[in-house]
Amino acid sequence: MEIWFSELHTSNVKLSVRIDKQLFSGESEYQRIDVFESEEFGKFVALDGDIVFSEKDEFIYDEMVTHVPMAVHPCVKRVLIIGGGDGGVAKELLQYSSIESIDVVETDKLFVDVCRDIFPEVACGLSDPRVKVYYDDGLRFLRNKKEEYDLIINDSTDPFGHTEGLFTKEFYGSCYKALKSDGIMVYQHGSPFYDEDEDACRSMHRKVYRSFPISRVYQAHIPTCPSGYWLFGFASKKYHPINDFKPENWKKLKIETWYYTANLHMGAFMLPKYVEDLLEEEEKE
Amino acid sequence: MEIWFSELHTSNVKLSVRIDKQLFSGESEYQRIDVFESEEFGKFVALDGDIVFSEKDEFIYDEMVTHVPMAVHPCVKRVLIIGGGDGGVAKELLQYSSIESIDVVETDKLFVDVCRDIFPEVACGLSDPRVKVYYDDGLRFLRNKKEEYDLIINDSTDPFGHTEGLFTKEFYGSCYKALKSDGIMVYQHGSPFYDEDEDACRSMHRKVYRSFPISRVYQAHIPTCPSGYWLFGFASKKYHPINDFKPENWKKLKIETWYYTANLHMGAFMLPKYVEDLLEEEEKE
Repeated sequence: MEIWFSELHTSNVKLSVRIDKQLFSGESEYQRIDVFESEEFGKFVALDGDIVFSEKDEFIYDEMVTHVPMAVHPCVKRVLIIGGGDGGVAKELLQYSSIESIDVVETDKLFVDVCRDIFPEVACGLSDPRVKVYYDDGLRFLRNKKEEYDLIINDSTDPFGHTEGLFTKEFYGSCYKALKSDGIMVYQHGSPFYDEDEDACRSMHRKVYRSFPISRVYQAHIPTCPSGYWLFGFASKKYHPINDFKPENWKKLKIETWYYTANLHMGAFMLPKYVEDLLEEEEKE
Repeated sequence: MEIWFSELHTSNVKLSVRIDKQLFSGESEYQRIDVFESEEFGKFVALDGDIVFSEKDEFIYDEMVTHVPMAVHPCVKRVLIIGGGDGGVAKELLQYSSIESIDVVETDKLFVDVCRDIFPEVACGLSDPRVKVYYDDGLRFLRNKKEEYDLIINDSTDPFGHTEGLFTKEFYGSCYKALKSDGIMVYQHGSPFYDEDEDACRSMHRKVYRSFPISRVYQAHIPTCPSGYWLFGFASKKYHPINDFKPENWKKLKIETWYYTANLHMGAFMLPKYVEDLLEEEEKE
């Protein structure tokens, strides 16, 4: 017997993963949630059919959204994670003793419950006393926040469906307002390779570039993402991700990583020509 | 009707591409050759079932094996390409006026004929008066060559099957001998992410590291490669890929690219921690 899970990366390309068995399938108010056990990626979660988390490659994503801003900002105390119900980003952040509180705002309680049940070694990130989980819509949660956070990580999946509001100009404006005067926002910037993803990627950069004084894009290789290539946005009121990067300070913390290094931090901002070009096009009026 | 081409990246993961139609299928003395027309990747060639060339992403590969060494070596005149029967690398190299001759050694004449027929805009690289095509085995061709080349590009596909001999210690030794005293060899280093590819990747680095005084690995994101992530080796008798890199000289040539930039050159050598670790392990006695 063979069981294959397939994810359409575009309507003409799909990635398939051989699975041993399905561990969970359920429908929440917001989305369909499936969990599978596989040889190649370990256990993984699909939301509405898209892989959002796998045991084998989640370290890349979690490290890249965490250590890049943490190695730039001199002292992060208060963090907001929008999405992030699996707890992976919170867990990564908890390694920094400077952090006093992490608010996780996740719309879907069922998703959190499933992760706590099936991925306890990751979801434990949500049980730390410094972490508080709010079951709320990210945009609504942000509306009355003003200069509260040093770092906001938008861990939301896609600019479609129930998370669509987290990719609007209004949302980026709310993040700006909720950040302190030297705050940083990091967000998923999608994959630029396939034509149908490129549009979403352009649209995001156009909005953020106009909302923050500093807006740069960085990259990582994530096998389960479309074309294996993923971009992140670094938007900031004060600190530049390269000019204000302090590799020596970060190295002194002796944080163990498997993807991120101080050297890779620099390289992550050195983008292919076709990506540079599309971003620059969106920076023009 | 739906037609899907699938390539097993490991025995548990496959990438599938929707195809419009098959343009060619044939069996040479060495391998099965198939050409397909697809919406997402344009026309592409599969050798024994593995995609080796697609119209949509070949620029990444061709640019990365060409411009990285060309921007380091101060004056490349004679080049040897082992494999490269599609002509893409030759075409990229021909943009440099310093180059006087390019020898292309391709085992499989049928592969070259198919590329000339179906990809004339790429295979035209083989028709330039500076290019000479030899239908021969790479290892045999190299045996009596001594200090002839400034640059050798090993464009061979896999360390398995009829190209297996191009990934041996003997082969790297022959390349070393065939290079001038300041020569550079660039070669495919495989993908390090999946366990079954990691072994081949380690074995290659172990051999080359012991055959050349300078041996560094660099990366690119190539969607049709396993996990979308590909490594290249830079082995050299004299020039270091970063310390001897002259970005200003390269920029003056005004060569048009779509992936490579002088900035990306630096970033390509900044590898993830897990890749650094596995390479360093092979450097130890």
